[in-house]
Amino acid sequence: MAEKIRVGVLGARGKVGAEVCAAVEAAADTELVAAVDQGDPIGSLVEGGAQVVVDFTHPDVVMDNLAFCIDHGIHAVVGTTGFDDERLAVLRDRLAAAPGVGVLVAPNFSIGAILMMRFATVAAPFYESVEIVELHHPDKADAPSGTARRTAELVAAARREAGLPAPPDATTTSIEGARGADVAGIRVHGLRVRGLVAHQEVILGGVGETLTIRHDSMDRASFTPGVLTGVRQVAAHPGLTVGLEHFLDLA
Amino acid sequence: MAEKIRVGVLGARGKVGAEVCAAVEAAADTELVAAVDQGDPIGSLVEGGAQVVVDFTHPDVVMDNLAFCIDHGIHAVVGTTGFDDERLAVLRDRLAAAPGVGVLVAPNFSIGAILMMRFATVAAPFYESVEIVELHHPDKADAPSGTARRTAELVAAARREAGLPAPPDATTTSIEGARGADVAGIRVHGLRVRGLVAHQEVILGGVGETLTIRHDSMDRASFTPGVLTGVRQVAAHPGLTVGLEHFLDLA
Amino acid sequence: MAEKIRVGVLGARGKVGAEVCAAVEAAADTELVAAVDQGDPIGSLVEGGAQVVVDFTHPDVVMDNLAFCIDHGIHAVVGTTGFDDERLAVLRDRLAAAPGVGVLVAPNFSIGAILMMRFATVAAPFYESVEIVELHHPDKADAPSGTARRTAELVAAARREAGLPAPPDATTTSIEGARGADVAGIRVHGLRVRGLVAHQEVILGGVGETLTIRHDSMDRASFTPGVLTGVRQVAAHPGLTVGLEHFLDLA
Amino acid sequence: MAEKIRVGVLGARGKVGAEVCAAVEAAADTELVAAVDQGDPIGSLVEGGAQVVVDFTHPDVVMDNLAFCIDHGIHAVVGTTGFDDERLAVLRDRLAAAPGVGVLVAPNFSIGAILMMRFATVAAPFYESVEIVELHHPDKADAPSGTARRTAELVAAARREAGLPAPPDATTTSIEGARGADVAGIRVHGLRVRGLVAHQEVILGGVGETLTIRHDSMDRASFTPGVLTGVRQVAAHPGLTVGLEHFLDLA
Repeated sequence: MAEKIRVGVLGARGKVGAEVCAAVEAAADTELVAAVDQGDPIGSLVEGGAQVVVDFTHPDVVMDNLAFCIDHGIHAVVGTTGFDDERLAVLRDRLAAAPGVGVLVAPNFSIGAILMMRFATVAAPFYESVEIVELHHPDKADAPSGTARRTAELVAAARREAGLPAPPDATTTSIEGARGADVAGIRVHGLRVRGLVAHQEVILGGVGETLTIRHDSMDRASFTPGVLTGVRQVAAHPGLTVGLEHFLDLA
Repeated sequence: MAEKIRVGVLGARGKVGAEVCAAVEAAADTELVAAVDQGDPIGSLVEGGAQVVVDFTHPDVVMDNLAFCIDHGIHAVVGTTGFDDERLAVLRDRLAAAPGVGVLVAPNFSIGAILMMRFATVAAPFYESVEIVELHHPDKADAPSGTARRTAELVAAARREAGLPAPPDATTTSIEGARGADVAGIRVHGLRVRGLVAHQEVILGGVGETLTIRHDSMDRASFTPGVLTGVRQVAAHPGLTVGLEHFLDLA
Repeated sequence: MAEKIRVGVLGARGKVGAEVCAAVEAAADTELVAAVDQGDPIGSLVEGGAQVVVDFTHPDVVMDNLAFCIDHGIHAVVGTTGFDDERLAVLRDRLAAAPGVGVLVAPNFSIGAILMMRFATVAAPFYESVEIVELHHPDKADAPSGTARRTAELVAAARREAGLPAPPDATTTSIEGARGADVAGIRVHGLRVRGLVAHQEVILGGVGETLTIRHDSMDRASFTPGVLTGVRQVAAHPGLTVGLEHFLDLA
Repeated sequence: MAEKIRVGVLGARGKVGAEVCAAVEAAADTELVAAVDQGDPIGSLVEGGAQVVVDFTHPDVVMDNLAFCIDHGIHAVVGTTGFDDERLAVLRDRLAAAPGVGVLVAPNFSIGAILMMRFATVAAPFYESVEIVELHHPDKADAPSGTARRTAELVAAARREAGLPAPPDATTTSIEGARGADVAGIRVHGLRVRGLVAHQEVILGGVGETLTIRHDSMDRASFTPGVLTGVRQVAAHPGLTVGLEHFLDLA
């Protein structure tokens, strides 16, 4: 049997980090060798022999964490937010000096959400109409969701590239908001209903038919398979990768 | 076998009237005895021995049509629009002088739409959240649809009566329109997608569960069973009835 | 402000009982005065002044529990299984001697499931076709689910009473099982998919339209509002009631 | 502006052929130059200067039709059924002698159905569970539908290639048929409900999430965009192509 991948987790006592630890321990091909949080010595990653680090920490500390990892030849899978072009450029520079090391920075580890966005983008050129509905619990602060906004931008770009005009809409009489938000020319509708968790539907339509792609996330544990995919693939992708979709074989 | 109900149709050559004629002829218990349109003598209703008239004509002529029917003791099932309180009062007066005659005025003959509104109203008091999504072809001029607005009003009234506060919504950051239209305090979202016909979904939610009531109308023929129900029941309901729901046994 | 209802819970340390305790404590109008499980003295119900007892215990002990409650003038809301006609007759006898006491025995406390069954039954006479799809996690042992079987029986009875023939089905070539299970003449389909919890859809159809009633249960906590409804209503319904639907105002 | 593609239709007076003729005439970049049916001279294809022929005829005549087209350097888009390996080999041989000519043989021209099958296949390796539900009008003779069977086979192959075991299923007590048909190890459920046209849903699930791909075909006209895509692309694909998916840019 192949040796297990030795994994260290930064932010290990946070809500997300704790689930990552559990998933790493549960999977047959990974092994948790260091669980580090605020106040713990980061050196335990090296002592434990971590090959890959998973970082769900904070924008304030993540750049230092990654500098440490790259300098010690440890690959990294990063779910911490706050990466802008400047930070990505800094990472690329540092990785240039460590040719064998791979870093994955991903805003979204839900494989289902990634597939939904991908399929919506591939299908978009074939359909006259497309709209997006996202449905969440009513404690969510932003509308539409980040995933819905991102999907709209991807779909809009795919339509533009295919030379499609704006989706048809003969609405002349309307109550304000009835047709949803306009994100890059695509209509996005946000529902907030108790009992829901996180759901999204992309509805594409042409004459006589519709194609609907729906993702239902019932549990926050649904991001862990994506993290594990990152852990398994990052060593084979030296340098910087932005977006888990590049590690999925979607061609 | 029971005798068939003898039916006359006013507006018989219109799109809707023609489908009513076909449905009356197809049903085992009804018989088409007069098909009247603009320019035809209305007297043929009497000559044909019509017991029930179905009127899908125009607001300009429907009051004269109904006066004729009531005076000749013919029951009427009316889908023509334009009935306000004044017109309904006129009808009630005239019917008071013709005690055996029944007139049904209905804004909606789709039994599915009526059941959807009814069920949403019955369920509303049991759920913290409720939102409405209506989905139509992109050639529709108004948003939200009349049925969605009516559903929102009924649901809002049921919640008010049960003493429920406004549905929870923690949205603080929003793109304009993302949370839909506000109809009587209920959020309503209208989609316009090629390939769709006429669809509506009412989503009710409480802790850990949602209840969804969805009506899909794929074909305008879907209103004819409601018209036939009206035809069969109107004689047993003398006087004026507004709304087909009063002829359905929904208790 | 009205006084809180004083509630005792039997089976308080079981999975379900623990959630009932939490719900009773969280609600504004109920108060937990006794949490009793195996080995605890049942007398603490009386000492705590319980007005209503909730029993999620075991068929072996529930009859003794209820005898105690009835004898002490305590109303009971019972989710424990195993009630057959004989047991119900015993309860009725004992309640006859305690005229003010109410006992509710309910196989299902999910208000959403009860509404779904109710709406499917009300709608059934209006539709030529109806089928049921239930969707659950793949660790479930029985297919179709009990709720799906019960829904099929209710729908079949409503169709029979309305004089409807069997739903149309022109299938002549079929792979075994493709058309689902036959429950009282209604087709029922059971899906088992990882990530799902407990879901059911009733699809009714007539010419040109369909009506779909769907219940999604994402969390076992979804039964607690039904238990609280039982607790609030049971004192007003002396004698034996079987089924929570009798406490909901669904007319 | 580019010249229009000159199109001939074989089987032009059949139900499908007539819709193809209408679609060719309606599109901005195609032109109908010959509409041929039984008894008409096939030579009118040459006289009209057809560059592409669309054939929706009969297995008995389609091979002769294609021989004529290939010999006259006319590309062909073929929806006629009955192509087995032998027939495809004959076509390949004949095309070898006409190097510039393209023939597309496609069992399915619905772009939506093709996308659904493609997306299901791409997603399959990422999910522990997958089941298929197809929903049709009750006059359909076979269950499950051909598209559902084909989808199951594609999904099963993708899972096998990824090394996935059978989907989990703990069912021990079951009413016959409740778990659907077994097609290549994938469960397929067929519903037959009045009011439906042709619909399919593929539900994929992993821990805490599901991904659903649904295709709704409300009108048989929905296949014409696929035929037009074939017409536009066939000249650029000399030789034999089986399946419209090869003309769609889905990478």
